[in-house]
Amino acid sequence: MPTNHRVKLASRPAGGLPQPANFEFDAVETPALTEGQVLVKISYISLDPAMRGWMNESRSYIKPVQIGDVFRAGTAGQVVESQNPAFAVGDYVTGNLGVQQYAVAGAGATDPASPEYLVKVDTRLAPLETYLATLGMPGLTAYFGLLNTGQPKAGETVVVSGAAGAVGSVVGQIAKLKGCRVVGIVGDEEKAEYCTTELGFDATINYKTENVRTALRAACPKGIDVYFDNVGGEILDFVLEQIRLHARIVICGAISQYNNTTPVKGPSNYLSLLVNRARMEGIVVFDNAANYATAAREMAGWIQEGKLKSPKVQVEHGIENFLPALLKLFSGENFGKLVLAP
Amino acid sequence: MPTNHRVKLASRPAGGLPQPANFEFDAVETPALTEGQVLVKISYISLDPAMRGWMNESRSYIKPVQIGDVFRAGTAGQVVESQNPAFAVGDYVTGNLGVQQYAVAGAGATDPASPEYLVKVDTRLAPLETYLATLGMPGLTAYFGLLNTGQPKAGETVVVSGAAGAVGSVVGQIAKLKGCRVVGIVGDEEKAEYCTTELGFDATINYKTENVRTALRAACPKGIDVYFDNVGGEILDFVLEQIRLHARIVICGAISQYNNTTPVKGPSNYLSLLVNRARMEGIVVFDNAANYATAAREMAGWIQEGKLKSPKVQVEHGIENFLPALLKLFSGENFGKLVLAP
Repeated sequence: MPTNHRVKLASRPAGGLPQPANFEFDAVETPALTEGQVLVKISYISLDPAMRGWMNESRSYIKPVQIGDVFRAGTAGQVVESQNPAFAVGDYVTGNLGVQQYAVAGAGATDPASPEYLVKVDTRLAPLETYLATLGMPGLTAYFGLLNTGQPKAGETVVVSGAAGAVGSVVGQIAKLKGCRVVGIVGDEEKAEYCTTELGFDATINYKTENVRTALRAACPKGIDVYFDNVGGEILDFVLEQIRLHARIVICGAISQYNNTTPVKGPSNYLSLLVNRARMEGIVVFDNAANYATAAREMAGWIQEGKLKSPKVQVEHGIENFLPALLKLFSGENFGKLVLAP
Repeated sequence: MPTNHRVKLASRPAGGLPQPANFEFDAVETPALTEGQVLVKISYISLDPAMRGWMNESRSYIKPVQIGDVFRAGTAGQVVESQNPAFAVGDYVTGNLGVQQYAVAGAGATDPASPEYLVKVDTRLAPLETYLATLGMPGLTAYFGLLNTGQPKAGETVVVSGAAGAVGSVVGQIAKLKGCRVVGIVGDEEKAEYCTTELGFDATINYKTENVRTALRAACPKGIDVYFDNVGGEILDFVLEQIRLHARIVICGAISQYNNTTPVKGPSNYLSLLVNRARMEGIVVFDNAANYATAAREMAGWIQEGKLKSPKVQVEHGIENFLPALLKLFSGENFGKLVLAP
């Protein structure tokens, strides 16, 4: 039986960035399987901004992680033992298996959010890590959030924040596929360059070096029809100043606010929604579970036709590096989809 | 030729409540009519929170009133002279004729927002002032805002602020017609009593004497499905804390913020939109101009069947009292639809 190193939630961050003391590392023997179970060796653990919210006690779209539980995470790995005829040793799978090296799962769970639920993936279609990016939650979030809620029309201007990230890079590319002008907001020049030359965005704004209000005005001369927001904060306010009639603002996240020790900054310019008869709407990808397969198939087609590039994947190594790796999301040090190989 | 006393915008308020110096009163002879024109003697001038916004220079859903112009207002009156075969002396009309005693209009304007545009109204169906209330802009705002944007379903909980006002009282009654639980937020006990006993609301909250957060929890045990917001400010934040999955927040106004000398308070709890996959959307009644007649007919039917009560109308007298009368809206001293008989 292999030893399984795990990361458990030891305490809730009091506010601000999570600290090492909030996590406990342990090692246990993987248990013997019972009928229907499989043992998965986890290759990649998805590191996502949403994880910060799961550390809090407060009610959200998903239950908080409980103190003492293995910390929740999307993962991709390979079946190394099986007592389930649907999964053979060697199969590649994804599931919410948590921050650990091995997991026992697969015993008939039907809820995709369950830590028992496994999906087989085809690594001939795309590399395993892509199933945590474009063909996983970030890509599906981009797909459903942009298309169902943002409803971009050809000729419209779409702005996306966190544009070089796992979600943002897919949002921008799908918006281009739909014939929109796409402006990405990023935090460094390398990411800006990547968005315009690799992903085909029309313009980018570096929020760390540019005046975002002025830069948006220059990049969006007709105003903003769709804003896909991953960051919140003052950028949301600058966008609200410049939206067009009947604009749609998709609230996907607010990474700038997750580690606040002060109250969240509400958008002071929200009355622009009234002036412009515009809409601001929150999205959570889980609501679209019934349509994941159709969406992933369409995106896999775009990838194969060369119309959609999978985001860069940045792999950090070692389960002991979980926290420093996660913190890169909040400092903006990661580039593209951040995963941990445990 | 009768003398016409008028109120013109003399300067823009610097912030805070408008002051007497912002307005100029004058008196002019009414001009001789040319072909197509009618002279209307204005019986009632509608006083609306939106007027505060029209005093500002900033871009909004309608052009600011220009310095030196008669101040914009919805009005109801009677034709006293006519050079237009479509309007006879004695006809009752409504139009955006401004804060004055007489107006020349009727010469073929087709834009309902134009100060030339007149609509004949039937005072056998409802008293003239009702055409500035339930059958006018406030009622239409309630009708389209609630039904098209709020989309209330039977059994849902609808909260409305400014509940005893010209818009709020109609919102609450239509929500009751649709089978919803209706909770009104008001600023005094008399208004609360009126909402529950006269209008049939299920509960009210007096924001001046009650803890709104706690009171909402008690009045909306299942949470809030639709919030029709006329006031903004901290009440919007308390509501956001208590919305249900897929809630709809209709942003109709934010009277608590119009006279701010500090920046507008953005809703700190806006990320509740994400958690609950909820929507916040602004509305402006003018977008529904093509459907005004149908809506007014349906509401007139409800009035005749006794299902919809027209809001109380509070009449202030004397064009010289324009500003003190208007300020009652912001202090909450008015009760129901506030009009000025010039």
